[in-house]
Amino acid sequence: MSPYGFTREHAEPRSHIFALVDHLLVDRAYGGRFQLKDWSKINDAKAAERSAWEVLKDVDPTSNEQKIFPPYTPRTAATAANPVCLQCKTTDYILKWAYMGDKHPKAKWDRTSNVVEVARDAHRTFACAHCHDPHSAEPRVVRDALIEAVVDRGKGTYPYDPEKSKKITIKKVVFRDFRAIGILNKPDGTLRCAQCHVEYNCNPGIDTKTGKPVTMADRRANFFPWVNVLDYQKVMAEIGFADFKHEVTGALLLKLQHPETETFWNSKHERAGVTCADCHMPKVKNKEGKVYTFHGQRSVKYVPGRTAVCVNCHKYWTPEQAEYVIQGIQNYIRGKMRKAEFWISKLVDTYALAKSVGVSEEVLAKARELHSKAHPYWEWWTAENSDGFHNPELAKQSLNLAIQYAVEGVTLLEKAITEKQAQAKK
Amino acid sequence: MSPYGFTREHAEPRSHIFALVDHLLVDRAYGGRFQLKDWSKINDAKAAERSAWEVLKDVDPTSNEQKIFPPYTPRTAATAANPVCLQCKTTDYILKWAYMGDKHPKAKWDRTSNVVEVARDAHRTFACAHCHDPHSAEPRVVRDALIEAVVDRGKGTYPYDPEKSKKITIKKVVFRDFRAIGILNKPDGTLRCAQCHVEYNCNPGIDTKTGKPVTMADRRANFFPWVNVLDYQKVMAEIGFADFKHEVTGALLLKLQHPETETFWNSKHERAGVTCADCHMPKVKNKEGKVYTFHGQRSVKYVPGRTAVCVNCHKYWTPEQAEYVIQGIQNYIRGKMRKAEFWISKLVDTYALAKSVGVSEEVLAKARELHSKAHPYWEWWTAENSDGFHNPELAKQSLNLAIQYAVEGVTLLEKAITEKQAQAKK
Amino acid sequence: MSPYGFTREHAEPRSHIFALVDHLLVDRAYGGRFQLKDWSKINDAKAAERSAWEVLKDVDPTSNEQKIFPPYTPRTAATAANPVCLQCKTTDYILKWAYMGDKHPKAKWDRTSNVVEVARDAHRTFACAHCHDPHSAEPRVVRDALIEAVVDRGKGTYPYDPEKSKKITIKKVVFRDFRAIGILNKPDGTLRCAQCHVEYNCNPGIDTKTGKPVTMADRRANFFPWVNVLDYQKVMAEIGFADFKHEVTGALLLKLQHPETETFWNSKHERAGVTCADCHMPKVKNKEGKVYTFHGQRSVKYVPGRTAVCVNCHKYWTPEQAEYVIQGIQNYIRGKMRKAEFWISKLVDTYALAKSVGVSEEVLAKARELHSKAHPYWEWWTAENSDGFHNPELAKQSLNLAIQYAVEGVTLLEKAITEKQAQAKK
Repeated sequence: MSPYGFTREHAEPRSHIFALVDHLLVDRAYGGRFQLKDWSKINDAKAAERSAWEVLKDVDPTSNEQKIFPPYTPRTAATAANPVCLQCKTTDYILKWAYMGDKHPKAKWDRTSNVVEVARDAHRTFACAHCHDPHSAEPRVVRDALIEAVVDRGKGTYPYDPEKSKKITIKKVVFRDFRAIGILNKPDGTLRCAQCHVEYNCNPGIDTKTGKPVTMADRRANFFPWVNVLDYQKVMAEIGFADFKHEVTGALLLKLQHPETETFWNSKHERAGVTCADCHMPKVKNKEGKVYTFHGQRSVKYVPGRTAVCVNCHKYWTPEQAEYVIQGIQNYIRGKMRKAEFWISKLVDTYALAKSVGVSEEVLAKARELHSKAHPYWEWWTAENSDGFHNPELAKQSLNLAIQYAVEGVTLLEKAITEKQAQAKK
Repeated sequence: MSPYGFTREHAEPRSHIFALVDHLLVDRAYGGRFQLKDWSKINDAKAAERSAWEVLKDVDPTSNEQKIFPPYTPRTAATAANPVCLQCKTTDYILKWAYMGDKHPKAKWDRTSNVVEVARDAHRTFACAHCHDPHSAEPRVVRDALIEAVVDRGKGTYPYDPEKSKKITIKKVVFRDFRAIGILNKPDGTLRCAQCHVEYNCNPGIDTKTGKPVTMADRRANFFPWVNVLDYQKVMAEIGFADFKHEVTGALLLKLQHPETETFWNSKHERAGVTCADCHMPKVKNKEGKVYTFHGQRSVKYVPGRTAVCVNCHKYWTPEQAEYVIQGIQNYIRGKMRKAEFWISKLVDTYALAKSVGVSEEVLAKARELHSKAHPYWEWWTAENSDGFHNPELAKQSLNLAIQYAVEGVTLLEKAITEKQAQAKK
Repeated sequence: MSPYGFTREHAEPRSHIFALVDHLLVDRAYGGRFQLKDWSKINDAKAAERSAWEVLKDVDPTSNEQKIFPPYTPRTAATAANPVCLQCKTTDYILKWAYMGDKHPKAKWDRTSNVVEVARDAHRTFACAHCHDPHSAEPRVVRDALIEAVVDRGKGTYPYDPEKSKKITIKKVVFRDFRAIGILNKPDGTLRCAQCHVEYNCNPGIDTKTGKPVTMADRRANFFPWVNVLDYQKVMAEIGFADFKHEVTGALLLKLQHPETETFWNSKHERAGVTCADCHMPKVKNKEGKVYTFHGQRSVKYVPGRTAVCVNCHKYWTPEQAEYVIQGIQNYIRGKMRKAEFWISKLVDTYALAKSVGVSEEVLAKARELHSKAHPYWEWWTAENSDGFHNPELAKQSLNLAIQYAVEGVTLLEKAITEKQAQAKK
């Protein structure tokens, strides 16, 4: 994955309440500018809920420059944040950000704004208004790139099921020619999560047709492909976008985010009518016995009652059996992920060896192409937050392709190395 | 281990009840032909007990071809199953399989039968008749290659203890010139486990004397070496058999199965008269208070009462102390395994580098020989199911040899690489 | 780390009672000479407390030679022990060892004595007299190299805080011109731990100015640098000492021990007046309700009450919150350690590749220098026993430097490899 910014740090997964704090804090986003006031604040959820600035300090309040702050060094932090990222971390910009983050006279911030200034203007992690109308509490979405994909590009709410897309709709309502809100015709426990839990571009990149940079001024820097892993490379080729160039092979690669929604489509659970909320936002009772919807969305391992939510549908199971099934599936998929990582790493190492002994550019180009093809079939699943459980069949298919392409690349290079040596001996 | 079929998948360890299901299901055996009807069936022990086909489906019932089925690709599954494998997974063939799986007019199946058809003819995992006479429940064994080793080849029941071999005997009884049953002169809690928990050949291979294939028609494809790790390479050299050729170094290698029995011989516990059954099949009480022999053989961690079985003999210990000792031993041996893996991997990588820069075939041949020697001294212990606990002294000795040979190979190659470079500079 | 003796084995961490036994037992110290009488003795704390020789046997009592004993092989054990090591493992030599281990007419043992004979003369793990005056129980230290650093070299008890050094002092009292005792002016819960839980030289090495060996006859073989990680390389350069030469790159490297004390200096906890004893030796009640100081020093995870000790000061926390903070910090630092290991390993591998394809000695020398610089900034934290918790800010800074230098080395070598290939094509 070298040298992509994400390689500088992978932090612990945590719940929504820390979303803004953790975005500001991770070493790869602001070069170490925003730091915990004190390490003990790392789990201060109450403070994080009130304001990120109760937990964090800005080590250089006099500048707005994105740079590396000591004790970080050029290769131990990155400045990969940008204004689009923040649209999933807070609802504070709702009146300051025009549709798609385009420049607009009434918009305080746009895609090209200085991200440090934008960040300083956020206080609270994303809130009720992300999913609920602030007056009626009716279901809605506010993330522009989702509305753009579903409505503007006409892909529908469930792109692989036109009938379901007809039944569950998003209506785009534009306010004062400024920003759009997506009104759901009825509650849906998946679409609102799809505002963030999807694969998206939220960064500059490389135009794969011209080789030139794609800057934040380009709308492709705020884009939902809104397809599953099998169609993903095709869509990205159509818009001509790659996220980064690999440091060793020079292959143009795509960087995945957290494509839970696209993964869930067509899974056994989705086909049976299950939504994200059924497992991650169960109905629970408070101390007074009143039933409410749990809003501390997180892994089923950590929702109240844990795998008891499985037993709501799988009535003849115990929670222990449910846990065994989940673990069985996840361990199988993790095995495939590890295998894909082995072969992709081997592809990179063999590429370096091949280049060192003078294998021809023609062969190297083919290997780069195989690297580009294998990569997203694997990385989708390391980015997706279920170790394959959301759709094990799709995970298996995709990871098998990743392994296959990587092995083909290795084989190609090894053959060329052997032939090169045979020539040299003549 | 590349490209051996086992490298395509290593599944989770599970108990005997899933033995047949898991054999059919693993990606390396039938190319993905047999799949779970539903992922939730992964832990349906009741269904697995009734029939594998309540849990599994055949994705292509019209063919009997061993091939790779989508979504698998050529390098993500293997078709490594064969009829000998199945003799440890089910007792269903007991009247359909002649001694040693040789061709026989009365045998429905033999070593060379189409394995898909053989597999479809199995329903239940191996059953009582594997170890007990169906009429009297008296102790017996049915696995032919064990009888062949103990009786035909005269190695005895405990090859390293002629006296014990005289006291505990197997009598070979041939039925209607068709198959043989081994009658034990008295119960032994190790020998019946030795039908499966041993190192065996159950696959075609390579004749190390001629370099030609050893097919399933050859009796060497159903063979128990019946020796410990120190004598294993010698016996395999005598019969001239190797399991596979390594993809990178081209070394001829042996593939280990689960040599628990041979490992246990001469261990402290075995010398003290302990048998497999003492730890893995303890006497337990049912709800009515009746004592019976637990038949859900598995790791002591998961038998009822866990390490309480240790305290039966080690009377001054608590179960916690017993667990500490087990973990202490296993962690030590795991450390040696990891070190052996580091050095064997380094040997393979250094071989690739040496070949790339033109090191002489003479040196490469020596490195291959060291790879062949190091490999089984290590792999024995990854295949053996106790992380060395069954015989820590032997594990230590063997793994030290694996490390030593691998380091010698690396050193040899590094020296040759340096010399090659020195020559080039002249 | 190859070929340093420590690479032959890393054993499990255990408590003080096993300190002497484990030192004698580890494969890297005496070549396998001292073995458990029986694997079950591995956790026999009562026997270990009485005498190491109730637990261990000497496999060759007739010789005192440091050599490799079967079943070990030349590369699976090491003979890295020496008489200085033992000064932290037992108090038995207190009347037999002159100050600094120099030769002395009244000393039975000195730094150059045969270590096997010295070892055989020890029976009990280190005892009360290490920290308490045997008559008055007043606080004292006996480890000579600590007294040498604090008093003889005038560095003080807290080298980075001259004021604190004035308040907490060690007075060197020399007995009969033979050995010295350090009398503390008042109890200090860190300094007595500093006798062992520091970085020290306790082995021969290489003189970095002359390239010649530093033998045990040299006082540098018993030396406390008594500085933090940022000043460590400077002090070692001043005394001109390196521990070993790396097997692949040939870089001269430093080997870290367990620098807990130096790490703790200037940490948030230390500045707040906390000492080692506050967390690792809490006051606890016995069965009769009497309060005493817990002397089974170990990780807070395993002291009685676990993270309840945190709550003594962090009054608004629950023990669970305390545990979350500890784990959050440790996981962050572990992430940095893994990244440093990735890049240092890559530096070593890229060095091997560069050398194989004939990159110039000038570039290789620069890479070796970067290896030497990166190494201690990383290894400090694998040797230090808190995964960074004792001083997370310092850990972050140091590990960032390790990563940075390693990446610079890799980049340098990769550039040279590419240029070499470009030349070859001309």
